[in-house]
Amino acid sequence: MYLEEPSNSFIRDENDIKIKDLEKKIPLIGIPWDWSTGGRPGARFSPQEIRKELYSLRSDVYKIREIKYGFKDLGNVKVVPGDVDGTSHRIISVAEKAFSEYTPTVFLGGDHSITKNILIGLINFYKKIGLIVFDAHYDLREVNEGLTSGSWLNELLKSYKEKFEVIQIGISDYSNPPYMKKIADKFGIKVFYRDQISEGFDIIFNEIKMIKEKTDGLYISIDMDHLDQSFAPGVNSPTALGMYPDETIKIIKEIVKNVNLLGLDVTEIAPPFDLNNMTSRLAAKLILYTLNYYIGNKNE
Amino acid sequence: MYLEEPSNSFIRDENDIKIKDLEKKIPLIGIPWDWSTGGRPGARFSPQEIRKELYSLRSDVYKIREIKYGFKDLGNVKVVPGDVDGTSHRIISVAEKAFSEYTPTVFLGGDHSITKNILIGLINFYKKIGLIVFDAHYDLREVNEGLTSGSWLNELLKSYKEKFEVIQIGISDYSNPPYMKKIADKFGIKVFYRDQISEGFDIIFNEIKMIKEKTDGLYISIDMDHLDQSFAPGVNSPTALGMYPDETIKIIKEIVKNVNLLGLDVTEIAPPFDLNNMTSRLAAKLILYTLNYYIGNKNE
Amino acid sequence: MYLEEPSNSFIRDENDIKIKDLEKKIPLIGIPWDWSTGGRPGARFSPQEIRKELYSLRSDVYKIREIKYGFKDLGNVKVVPGDVDGTSHRIISVAEKAFSEYTPTVFLGGDHSITKNILIGLINFYKKIGLIVFDAHYDLREVNEGLTSGSWLNELLKSYKEKFEVIQIGISDYSNPPYMKKIADKFGIKVFYRDQISEGFDIIFNEIKMIKEKTDGLYISIDMDHLDQSFAPGVNSPTALGMYPDETIKIIKEIVKNVNLLGLDVTEIAPPFDLNNMTSRLAAKLILYTLNYYIGNKNE
Amino acid sequence: MYLEEPSNSFIRDENDIKIKDLEKKIPLIGIPWDWSTGGRPGARFSPQEIRKELYSLRSDVYKIREIKYGFKDLGNVKVVPGDVDGTSHRIISVAEKAFSEYTPTVFLGGDHSITKNILIGLINFYKKIGLIVFDAHYDLREVNEGLTSGSWLNELLKSYKEKFEVIQIGISDYSNPPYMKKIADKFGIKVFYRDQISEGFDIIFNEIKMIKEKTDGLYISIDMDHLDQSFAPGVNSPTALGMYPDETIKIIKEIVKNVNLLGLDVTEIAPPFDLNNMTSRLAAKLILYTLNYYIGNKNE
Amino acid sequence: MYLEEPSNSFIRDENDIKIKDLEKKIPLIGIPWDWSTGGRPGARFSPQEIRKELYSLRSDVYKIREIKYGFKDLGNVKVVPGDVDGTSHRIISVAEKAFSEYTPTVFLGGDHSITKNILIGLINFYKKIGLIVFDAHYDLREVNEGLTSGSWLNELLKSYKEKFEVIQIGISDYSNPPYMKKIADKFGIKVFYRDQISEGFDIIFNEIKMIKEKTDGLYISIDMDHLDQSFAPGVNSPTALGMYPDETIKIIKEIVKNVNLLGLDVTEIAPPFDLNNMTSRLAAKLILYTLNYYIGNKNE
Amino acid sequence: MYLEEPSNSFIRDENDIKIKDLEKKIPLIGIPWDWSTGGRPGARFSPQEIRKELYSLRSDVYKIREIKYGFKDLGNVKVVPGDVDGTSHRIISVAEKAFSEYTPTVFLGGDHSITKNILIGLINFYKKIGLIVFDAHYDLREVNEGLTSGSWLNELLKSYKEKFEVIQIGISDYSNPPYMKKIADKFGIKVFYRDQISEGFDIIFNEIKMIKEKTDGLYISIDMDHLDQSFAPGVNSPTALGMYPDETIKIIKEIVKNVNLLGLDVTEIAPPFDLNNMTSRLAAKLILYTLNYYIGNKNE
Repeated sequence: MYLEEPSNSFIRDENDIKIKDLEKKIPLIGIPWDWSTGGRPGARFSPQEIRKELYSLRSDVYKIREIKYGFKDLGNVKVVPGDVDGTSHRIISVAEKAFSEYTPTVFLGGDHSITKNILIGLINFYKKIGLIVFDAHYDLREVNEGLTSGSWLNELLKSYKEKFEVIQIGISDYSNPPYMKKIADKFGIKVFYRDQISEGFDIIFNEIKMIKEKTDGLYISIDMDHLDQSFAPGVNSPTALGMYPDETIKIIKEIVKNVNLLGLDVTEIAPPFDLNNMTSRLAAKLILYTLNYYIGNKNE
Repeated sequence: MYLEEPSNSFIRDENDIKIKDLEKKIPLIGIPWDWSTGGRPGARFSPQEIRKELYSLRSDVYKIREIKYGFKDLGNVKVVPGDVDGTSHRIISVAEKAFSEYTPTVFLGGDHSITKNILIGLINFYKKIGLIVFDAHYDLREVNEGLTSGSWLNELLKSYKEKFEVIQIGISDYSNPPYMKKIADKFGIKVFYRDQISEGFDIIFNEIKMIKEKTDGLYISIDMDHLDQSFAPGVNSPTALGMYPDETIKIIKEIVKNVNLLGLDVTEIAPPFDLNNMTSRLAAKLILYTLNYYIGNKNE
Repeated sequence: MYLEEPSNSFIRDENDIKIKDLEKKIPLIGIPWDWSTGGRPGARFSPQEIRKELYSLRSDVYKIREIKYGFKDLGNVKVVPGDVDGTSHRIISVAEKAFSEYTPTVFLGGDHSITKNILIGLINFYKKIGLIVFDAHYDLREVNEGLTSGSWLNELLKSYKEKFEVIQIGISDYSNPPYMKKIADKFGIKVFYRDQISEGFDIIFNEIKMIKEKTDGLYISIDMDHLDQSFAPGVNSPTALGMYPDETIKIIKEIVKNVNLLGLDVTEIAPPFDLNNMTSRLAAKLILYTLNYYIGNKNE
Repeated sequence: MYLEEPSNSFIRDENDIKIKDLEKKIPLIGIPWDWSTGGRPGARFSPQEIRKELYSLRSDVYKIREIKYGFKDLGNVKVVPGDVDGTSHRIISVAEKAFSEYTPTVFLGGDHSITKNILIGLINFYKKIGLIVFDAHYDLREVNEGLTSGSWLNELLKSYKEKFEVIQIGISDYSNPPYMKKIADKFGIKVFYRDQISEGFDIIFNEIKMIKEKTDGLYISIDMDHLDQSFAPGVNSPTALGMYPDETIKIIKEIVKNVNLLGLDVTEIAPPFDLNNMTSRLAAKLILYTLNYYIGNKNE
Repeated sequence: MYLEEPSNSFIRDENDIKIKDLEKKIPLIGIPWDWSTGGRPGARFSPQEIRKELYSLRSDVYKIREIKYGFKDLGNVKVVPGDVDGTSHRIISVAEKAFSEYTPTVFLGGDHSITKNILIGLINFYKKIGLIVFDAHYDLREVNEGLTSGSWLNELLKSYKEKFEVIQIGISDYSNPPYMKKIADKFGIKVFYRDQISEGFDIIFNEIKMIKEKTDGLYISIDMDHLDQSFAPGVNSPTALGMYPDETIKIIKEIVKNVNLLGLDVTEIAPPFDLNNMTSRLAAKLILYTLNYYIGNKNE
Repeated sequence: MYLEEPSNSFIRDENDIKIKDLEKKIPLIGIPWDWSTGGRPGARFSPQEIRKELYSLRSDVYKIREIKYGFKDLGNVKVVPGDVDGTSHRIISVAEKAFSEYTPTVFLGGDHSITKNILIGLINFYKKIGLIVFDAHYDLREVNEGLTSGSWLNELLKSYKEKFEVIQIGISDYSNPPYMKKIADKFGIKVFYRDQISEGFDIIFNEIKMIKEKTDGLYISIDMDHLDQSFAPGVNSPTALGMYPDETIKIIKEIVKNVNLLGLDVTEIAPPFDLNNMTSRLAAKLILYTLNYYIGNKNE
């Protein structure tokens, strides 16, 4: 009689509604794949860490007041360790099915290569997709051989350039080889460097307005390394002088206004290198802000 | 002859006045109590860590120039491990005696439940007390059973609502269940969310002005978790997207202007989870800023 | 279709039977209570860490070959944070019920004070209980006030001396005040210092033989701090020059031979201070060895 | 003039001969491949960490007195990230060339899957190869799909059973599913559990004697997780109650007596999880002991 | 054929130009000296950590676009461990030679005492040198005996006051004894406290303008402890409420405009206390920004 | 009234006698000097860490039963940071005075270079001193320039060879350049390698017997790096395959039998690299065992 489900939660407050207790509505899928990274692996453990933080958060929010909807957790994609083709196929299938049933869907990476496959699962549903990537890196590499999570956008756009309008936010100085910029230009990607964000939000807000007009919906991909390493230490490739989380939130708030939000992913968290689980905790709040500003806007 | 008190300080500078060398004036009391927390314990070790940082700081300050007064360290409340009633009684007695002799007094927690007992020790001296709490959480929980450091303000106001005007600063989104806001409203607490602070300081400065008019003096309670986890990693419950320390200092500067400052506490630091003793070091500076802006103002 | 329960396990081996997959037979109860400790808290998080390690181990064992039985996890005792009386009552009730249905039962602490309550739950079922405690400390303190996990055995024997025969193994030099030895003598406890173990196993094996003859069954309580700090770093109070795990196992093997094993607990692991989860991983193997040497012996 | 090659070595002793200063003789090859692991990745960083420790050790040894030969460092195999087939091909080619020129050759992993490819590179040179594996795990998994470093020996023996006589040393209780033992039996592997080693060295020494008689030379593969986690914390899968390093050395000493030593590898060190680089430092000494006891024996 | 230089870099992108691949032009010298510090030693390991981060950064920069010049690494000054006079002599000689051949030269400390010797190596080349120091501390101590990295500027100006115009930026409240300010005044140092920077950049920009007019060139010395401890945790003496890196960069940008930049040093990083190599990574970017804004300006 | 001296000790047991509460008899001196090390500095912080562990231990010991004598803490030698001559002079003076008043005296280093100066302070009191050094390294370096804690014994014996008989215990394979052995032979040092200890204690016990006969008293110097890195991780230069603490204690027990013990030092602990303060905790017990086996023997 005095027994309960084992947990590390000891506050005896029956009204302490947590995210895990809300109506299970927004689909959430973990993709524990980090076999594509050429850097520091560990993102395979990230979906579980983000979930742990996400589900223990609560529903009181300034302005929005009380959020209503939680997550319908569909589990993890059953990755095939070391097999990029087998796993890519599965990610595409899973994403396709998820998008066919509901938008927006949330994906927890995994290294950033997962975003390519998620988006391939999305392309058949829309004519033109707006893709907004928060990242310190272009991810437009051309590699001679082998995999890297730094080439996915190049690979995606080589095949599906006409399907996407792309904005990149948070590109970091001294973090990319110069040939990247040329590829970005070739693909018509609108690039916002971290230092450009520091100069003011007008240009980027304008670009966000324009991408909404040109597309049928937006997908947001957040590589946590676009944030400064003191806020996001637990990533594959930490960024000195990266963006501050409040800048990211301010831009997200603008992105999700009056738009058809198709999906969201958070990638590149490497828990073995994290401090105090800080990066996963921050990721959890970024996910909630994105979804709830979006839902809040739709209600208005 | 070549022997000295053992320490880890090796700079041979006889003019290196530290806080511990100043006139012992402002009473300081440690309260190593963390047996009320339902989260990550460890705050019992916090008074010693804060002292270590505090006493090794120096007295040169911009604008104020040179501060004169240090701390009269009264030691730690002799807590009764695991006995909340016995310890509460002692905290109340100690606080009451301290306040009868001098204000402001500084208290080093311990978990946040200590503030309730400190304030009970204060109520007989003033008709109306202004209580300003920096915290990511409301601390207004109703628990079915057992203790939590998240219920102290509820318990205090249930008994002594008429004695206090309360402002809460730094309440964090996704960190509280929604029923909290209703209890805050019921008690007439003025609440400032972290995101509200980001919008500007006018409203809060106005509220601070009003609380000064309505009360006989102010007591400041700082739960270090109101700060962003990258600045305050070593707390029971770290906060992503919390306040920045310069925002806290700006508000404190406004609070201590032309006011009767009754006391100050710093709580919820859990040294076992801290990085490089960062959180205690920051707490030490917050304490010094509060007191010296206060003393500086009085001199004008 | 390509989705699975989220986990951090990625090896696709359908025959990889883990402890969690075995027949759910031996009752296991977590007791996340550390509000009695006067030292470094954190043992409240230990049941979950031990479970994580325990359930992911496998069933192939040298000599025993393949073990058959896993755990019937009854969950955690719903502790009342900060309320020692309320929680003690619950532990006693839960233990009593568990022992009434099956022996041996496994308990995962928590601080060592839980053992007192577990044993109180056991006393009605047997006339004389053999208690074998592995511990660097006597846990026979007399405290003036407040709680400590270092007094449970004193409290237990004060009330129920006639019910128990006690052997203590691993008492560490320089880790106890001298008055302890006198109390141990008063209660007739057979004490084996760590340094005595180093001298040979004959005397202790003889004492084990004798306690079996004098009692109706044995209960084993393992305070992980009896082990050297390089093997068990993550405990409340680490022990330099403690026992080596293979010594412990050798003694356990002798204990569980031809005996009625009533129960087993593992206590005092403080995960926030552990390195690489080493101490919980070791605890998990100690639990399995105890049970399987016991079961193996019965089968013979 | 007062400038030197940058390093972290500041002792100005021109006679301080280090391993890196010895005659460059024994071939050494790094294989930074960990894309096969289904557990905790990071072994890709291990060759560099082992080198760092290895090259800074010195040449004075008890009994052997002064060792003469150092390493001819051939660099790292240029792995193809995420491409198991491409990389396997390269490892085989590199190993084949190395073995054709000199034995023994030293390989620094990487996850344990590299050993399969190294040995494939070796099979054409000898009729019968003795393979001695130190490992807590059988590495004989059958996986439904995907890669794991726990299946390499199964894969190797499926194709080349007749080429190898295999001894496994250090198999850990509760670390393997029971079907492993059956596969080991099927392949005629001589298995020595960790607990069997504790019982005495006679049987294993006898088995070592026999394998020497049956084969043309021995290859030693050391998975560092066969060692107790307090000695080898920085591995993919740490082992509680593993072997002690002095036991390993004692067995190695016996292995390399009067034998044709073909090669040696050290695998499964995951530096991101190591403490103070302890595991790489230990690995470096194991390598040196193996080679120098071998060379020392040949000289006699 | 499939072998390569050992490294921890696995991305196979032949166009991935890194700083180490650029034209070797700007002289860079490591000074691994920390035997003067009276605080937490470890800066002797800093040159290697900064190099590691610096050389692996890339050349794409917002606005500047693609940087052309990398570093001509002259190695480390061969310090004489524990011998301050011998080492000082070497630093001076090395600096003198470097400055005679090229400006600006970059120096990687080491504790802050190295800057005194670097500047002594510089004084013969210019009539008046502008020295801009980023530091939380005045470094103007008078010590009774022994060394400290907190006295170098005092020692320098005592001998060479007439050669320098000095600005100090980032002096931290509660981090200096009050007598420092008087010494600063005596030497005519322009001091900018961290809190003064928060009030706006006009005054400091004006002062920077004036120092350019009064001198023949500027030397910048960056003590990493002027930055907030959440951005620069790995320093001898961490600073709570320190400057933010973007403030530093904004000021540096102003400093290097239309000026003759003589040199730059980064000091006081203590890698043993760093988190995730964060402080060295940030230092590397500060160095690159300084040089490239400088070079970029010259080109205009 | 409910206030007490601040501490981190919360067990309310008035009979909990700790080492700090015993009769203050055995002189203890800290020597926080690490400016001679060419390796990883940090030993300057070691005296305080050892004290913290030492004074909180208790007085119950197996066989000896209850120890009576504690330490007369004379404080720390007031080192002159960075000044080896000034500090050496002070260490010699302090040691000389201490030895003139009482033996044995305990010294807490500091790097190992302190032992030279302690022993110089001792030479005038005795005709022939037996020096027993536990160390993984010979400490007989000849350096071209600069300091190192690895040369002290060479320097000492060059000047005072005739005053000392020396035994070195625990010399580690692969940890010394071969020329060391020759110097040891030249000075007639009896050397016991770690691997020799593994072979049995007879030879070393015999050598200990002989040194007692040849000298007027023994001094024991313990460099903690003679212990295996899993037991002593927090040292300047950690040793893989080092000695086990129980071996050290066994030898110490033999050393202090029927002898005139002159002094004892513990050196080379570098707390910044320690794990859980493990190495200081072990050092504290080694000190207590040495002294109490000594005192216990005298009583017999």
